[in-house]
Amino acid sequence: MKKVENFSEWYNDIVEKAGLCDKRYPVKGMNVWTSYGWKIMRLIDELIREEMERTNHEEIYFPMLISEDQFAKETDHIKGFGDDVYWVTHAGQNPLDVKLLLRPTSETAMYPTFALWVRSHADLPLKIFQIVNVFRYETRQTRAFMRVREIHFFESHTCHTDFEDAERQITQNLEIMTNLSKKLCMPYLALRRPDWDKFAGAYYTIGVDALMPTGRTLQVGGIHQYKENFAIPYEIKYEDEDGEHKYVHQTTYGMSERLVGAIVALHGDDRGLILPPDIAPFQVVIVPIPTRESRVEIYDACRELESELKEHGFRVHLDMREVRPGSKFYDWEIKGVPLRLELGKRDMEKGVVTFVRRDNGEKTEGERVNLVTEVKAVLEEIGQRLLENAEDQLRKNITPASSIEEASKATAVAKISWCGEKACGSEIETQTEMNVLGTSAEGETSEGNCIICKKPTSIIAYLAGTY
Amino acid sequence: MKKVENFSEWYNDIVEKAGLCDKRYPVKGMNVWTSYGWKIMRLIDELIREEMERTNHEEIYFPMLISEDQFAKETDHIKGFGDDVYWVTHAGQNPLDVKLLLRPTSETAMYPTFALWVRSHADLPLKIFQIVNVFRYETRQTRAFMRVREIHFFESHTCHTDFEDAERQITQNLEIMTNLSKKLCMPYLALRRPDWDKFAGAYYTIGVDALMPTGRTLQVGGIHQYKENFAIPYEIKYEDEDGEHKYVHQTTYGMSERLVGAIVALHGDDRGLILPPDIAPFQVVIVPIPTRESRVEIYDACRELESELKEHGFRVHLDMREVRPGSKFYDWEIKGVPLRLELGKRDMEKGVVTFVRRDNGEKTEGERVNLVTEVKAVLEEIGQRLLENAEDQLRKNITPASSIEEASKATAVAKISWCGEKACGSEIETQTEMNVLGTSAEGETSEGNCIICKKPTSIIAYLAGTY
Repeated sequence: MKKVENFSEWYNDIVEKAGLCDKRYPVKGMNVWTSYGWKIMRLIDELIREEMERTNHEEIYFPMLISEDQFAKETDHIKGFGDDVYWVTHAGQNPLDVKLLLRPTSETAMYPTFALWVRSHADLPLKIFQIVNVFRYETRQTRAFMRVREIHFFESHTCHTDFEDAERQITQNLEIMTNLSKKLCMPYLALRRPDWDKFAGAYYTIGVDALMPTGRTLQVGGIHQYKENFAIPYEIKYEDEDGEHKYVHQTTYGMSERLVGAIVALHGDDRGLILPPDIAPFQVVIVPIPTRESRVEIYDACRELESELKEHGFRVHLDMREVRPGSKFYDWEIKGVPLRLELGKRDMEKGVVTFVRRDNGEKTEGERVNLVTEVKAVLEEIGQRLLENAEDQLRKNITPASSIEEASKATAVAKISWCGEKACGSEIETQTEMNVLGTSAEGETSEGNCIICKKPTSIIAYLAGTY
Repeated sequence: MKKVENFSEWYNDIVEKAGLCDKRYPVKGMNVWTSYGWKIMRLIDELIREEMERTNHEEIYFPMLISEDQFAKETDHIKGFGDDVYWVTHAGQNPLDVKLLLRPTSETAMYPTFALWVRSHADLPLKIFQIVNVFRYETRQTRAFMRVREIHFFESHTCHTDFEDAERQITQNLEIMTNLSKKLCMPYLALRRPDWDKFAGAYYTIGVDALMPTGRTLQVGGIHQYKENFAIPYEIKYEDEDGEHKYVHQTTYGMSERLVGAIVALHGDDRGLILPPDIAPFQVVIVPIPTRESRVEIYDACRELESELKEHGFRVHLDMREVRPGSKFYDWEIKGVPLRLELGKRDMEKGVVTFVRRDNGEKTEGERVNLVTEVKAVLEEIGQRLLENAEDQLRKNITPASSIEEASKATAVAKISWCGEKACGSEIETQTEMNVLGTSAEGETSEGNCIICKKPTSIIAYLAGTY
């Protein structure tokens, strides 16, 4: 498994070897989440839930099936998703009166009901989210977590009195993304997509892109300003303080199982996964190193380590299998457990535990009496280092370019001046064989000339190949 | 809202008034889970997860779509479910090569993959579960949580070396059901269904039935022994210690959102829900009773109550809305919060907090200094009393009957002697207009004569009208 030589092969191999999923399910593009992978996903979901609770979003659940007429109300949205939806046409032997589709995302499921929920300004803002399965009939090559047909999906939807309040929500969503990215050790670019690449029906879209080891970016999230685009066809209106009826302004924020894919790709190495401590199913694995005489004593001491760490809230696994320590090391390295604790006769005599970090292989001794404190500190250090390394990688791979030639030579992401016109954007994409990811969501500008038409401009655009 | 006069109307009304779901979703039989109802469901899911973890089941996730050929392997299973499944026939504009169906339950999704996972006796037992949405095209009248077309569903699936080990799993499943029923305050009958009413494809089925206030029973769970019935068509085989290849024996255990429906129906009263403390989104609501002068002081003291209880792990809500205490009482009674704490000027002077129980309306004073201990004790008492009352109800409503006439007069469940033959069973069902629920899963017997053919028998059967 050589990550640098053949990323794609390495990735496909590692997701199965580490027990994240099983790709032998008989329906194309749909994989089985095995327990280890599913646990990682559920830990990520919990981090998202914490952020949602902190920011007063309520968790709800809307049905998965959407009727054809519900779906058909917002024209751009249908154009964007219509070709990718699965249609339910029959129940048992009988054709349905109204065709139903599997949600590709839930705008059209939710908004007829939002129109019933929102009556007055006192009902606003409305902030909800759900964590569900969505379906998209992908025609491109599928890849575990990165491009699948049943997608584990988070989506928040909000309604506001006006554009400004919706903009404040966008700012909050960006802040949530920042908080999450720290825990996921996943730096990203938040880029306002060019108009031709925005979410179907949106006023504008901010794509959240992570940089993959191949130099291509993977969109792991989307934050969307809808303005009144959906409120009008779905008639989501409220009465303001003066008795006037107005359309709400809406935003959404979506993320998916691609987060798992991105984390695997960012941190893994030739020996397997390296998991950020906050989402590792086991943060610590304990491997006893018994000798024939010390066996009982060491096993007992390991059980004590385990229970002490569990009491303090760590996710710990004590590996008591009847195999050699070496094979245990190997197995847990593939699974990316951040910290391995070894305990042998000599450790016990010295009153220490051997710490082995998965991220850099560093082997140190920790005082047995300070176990909890030291484990906590080391896990924090690992998270910090994973994040910093990934940030370094991202920074180093953004190349400022003042011409098509320079941009084309960029290792990964190129940063260029662009007039903002679609014609020039298309020309850039054709000539560089990269995508215009968009412009900085934080409003970064710089005086320059469009690399195509040479007109003066302050717009900075990011280019990259994408997954 | 009169529960005894018109249960059906009361139920339909209360699930919406309490904020459990919104039934105005435009697709029939599919409701929106609003945040309060969804939170209850998620708390129930967590109780199930705890039991699954305790008994070494691993959580996984299988795809929702099943291909027609995967589905078609076990003949009885298709007969049982074939008429109720939703078929996906198109993606975008194009017909699919192989039709896909939405899982009505996951045997046929999982078992082709189980055949890959199980190789040797060392892989057994295999014990997994998932919590997912399943779909059944119900033609009977739908009712929130009790009969819907998209169903929130728990299913565990196990594979064993032989029948005896599978039987031990059934025993464990019954034990899990007992543990859960205590936390849900939901007594039940575990009854081995007659052959004509078993799960499609099962060797035998134990139905878990709760008694509704109408005297009819609601099946809230199913525990199934499959023997080799699925292992043979799906070729799930293992190599035993002697190198011989054998089919596995399988069991499943399913429960659904009907648990929510049963709890609403069992405990609610004319003022609204009454929630068991273990699954109440808020176990305690704090209502300040301020006077003009004491306002700030009382609000501060209420915030202290809140944070003290939260620190000790209680789910608490402090209601600071600008409405009169009376409307707050009313709202939280509808939502069934088990315990209300009131704090006014006089309480503060006396160093007490006023406790009001939702289950019996009892109003007492608790020492402020012992708050945590007293809240804990009262919540436990409430749970205990809800369970005991429901157990009483169930016991009182099981009527031993020695003839068709006596059985027909039973208020709810009748207990009769039955020879075990289908002919007599059908006759019993026709004449009593009740269903043969089955025989005690615990093996209860008693000498008597079949109430139809009069043959001597030791079989005891339970009859009831069912939902």
